Amino acid sequence: MKILVTGGSGFIGSHLVNALVDKNHRVSVIDLKKGENKKVKYFVGDLLDKKFLEEVFKKEKFKAVFHLAAKTSVSESVKNPYDNFESNVVGSLNILEECRKNKIKYVLFASSSTVYGNRGYCREKDKLFPVSPYGASKGSVDLYLNSYANMYNMNISSLILANIYGPGNEKGVIYDFYNKLKKNQKELEILGDGNQSKSYVYIDDCVKAFILVFYKMVEGEVSGCNYFNVGSDEQMSVKGIAKTISKILGVNPVYKFTETWKGDVTNFLLDNSKLKRLGWRIENNTEKGIEKYLMYLIKN
Amino acid sequence: MKILVTGGSGFIGSHLVNALVDKNHRVSVIDLKKGENKKVKYFVGDLLDKKFLEEVFKKEKFKAVFHLAAKTSVSESVKNPYDNFESNVVGSLNILEECRKNKIKYVLFASSSTVYGNRGYCREKDKLFPVSPYGASKGSVDLYLNSYANMYNMNISSLILANIYGPGNEKGVIYDFYNKLKKNQKELEILGDGNQSKSYVYIDDCVKAFILVFYKMVEGEVSGCNYFNVGSDEQMSVKGIAKTISKILGVNPVYKFTETWKGDVTNFLLDNSKLKRLGWRIENNTEKGIEKYLMYLIKN
Repeated sequence: MKILVTGGSGFIGSHLVNALVDKNHRVSVIDLKKGENKKVKYFVGDLLDKKFLEEVFKKEKFKAVFHLAAKTSVSESVKNPYDNFESNVVGSLNILEECRKNKIKYVLFASSSTVYGNRGYCREKDKLFPVSPYGASKGSVDLYLNSYANMYNMNISSLILANIYGPGNEKGVIYDFYNKLKKNQKELEILGDGNQSKSYVYIDDCVKAFILVFYKMVEGEVSGCNYFNVGSDEQMSVKGIAKTISKILGVNPVYKFTETWKGDVTNFLLDNSKLKRLGWRIENNTEKGIEKYLMYLIKN
Repeated sequence: MKILVTGGSGFIGSHLVNALVDKNHRVSVIDLKKGENKKVKYFVGDLLDKKFLEEVFKKEKFKAVFHLAAKTSVSESVKNPYDNFESNVVGSLNILEECRKNKIKYVLFASSSTVYGNRGYCREKDKLFPVSPYGASKGSVDLYLNSYANMYNMNISSLILANIYGPGNEKGVIYDFYNKLKKNQKELEILGDGNQSKSYVYIDDCVKAFILVFYKMVEGEVSGCNYFNVGSDEQMSVKGIAKTISKILGVNPVYKFTETWKGDVTNFLLDNSKLKRLGWRIENNTEKGIEKYLMYLIKN
């Protein structure tokens, strides 16, 4: 099938692209930079450039679109809310409009657990209550997805992602701790009190969620507008991550706690039962995933 | 107090402006056209023109902003979702950014019951589930309000409005029925089966809601981000409206039912208890309000 992945050169996008190519789909990517998969057609450009989008869509006649392109930094969104809004909301509406006009059969969107705000335990039916502009940007698109699916009879699935980590990810707490410990094994600075408890999902399990939902859409089992939480079974505290990494690396640092950053959601777990009912299984729990990721970081 | 009302030349805006002027505030308006209140400073321009907004805000140093400017047609939003998105969401973000940068103390927003979608009975804590692009546009802004209030310590109130009607309103079912009956008293065409049951609020009661919430913000009783449903105590069916109008006009038409329009929310009532706890009282129930409005339409 002819598929477009926006943000296909980014962390999650590049893994997804590889998986789709492995399944023999003809994959194109729209991103600000080229990626590395040789079987993929890369269109370098900006989602805010409507003419560019129009041309790519007209030329390629995609059957499915995975829309992942976004500015993903929560703290940056707090500093520059408008910048984040333009990329994430205006950019998404531009993509949605192309999907509507070109009658794209299957649309998938990478949303974020930040749409729920400080709720703690989050089910898909819960009210969106984003505290960061980033969360508001993803939540806004989620609202529009429902409206587009309803008004224009489109099939749209939104995957509400917890913290995704793994090879290729160059931000986030695991990456941060690893690099700090590489420099200094004696001391580890932790933002916040370390009791922030969150949900972390290993990249392979995240990609599997996208592929699973996509295939269920193609089979007609999932239709209309649907939201799926993509989260781990258990929370892990930031202190727990520090301990897990220290154990794997065989180091024993002193923890130094500093102020956390604005906009952080400090405690959440996603109800993942809806996705599990579709057949999703987590193959890497947080400990196993962290170990895999660290092995990659050490090698690279 | 120095106050800006965006959309202050429109239906609800012009009534609100008059009420604020009557209370001796210094009122400015940003709108695409000039309004008629001689005590008001009108700035004619587009919310998408950021330079224009920047200049007005810098020059005027407002203390409060009532943001009402929007494209309000649900059916138009279905035809041109992007056009509606730009005016309502991008325009609102432009205003929000100015409010943030200029540290506006009190921000009030006119949201819409369409954010709830086809829920029926709607409380402020309910999940937003807009079906029309118009509803999604208002809901998106509502999400951003929460994020801005949280991140930048702003006081923001969103008034989630039912169908507002009254003098100056030149669309909607009451206006439509009146004009049809003026042309032909024997027959009345009704979109849908007439059983659509909705909440209607007379303009004076709506303006009172804005003023009440604003004063409670000034007094500090309402702070942070708050949402208030502005709805009637009772629903009225479209057939009920037809009967009420026919009775007042002393006519007895045959009803002719036709297909309804896409994007319509056919059944809703807003829980208005939160606003009532603040002291809001409805002075015009739907029958009384319709009578007042018809008297105005007949005279004008």
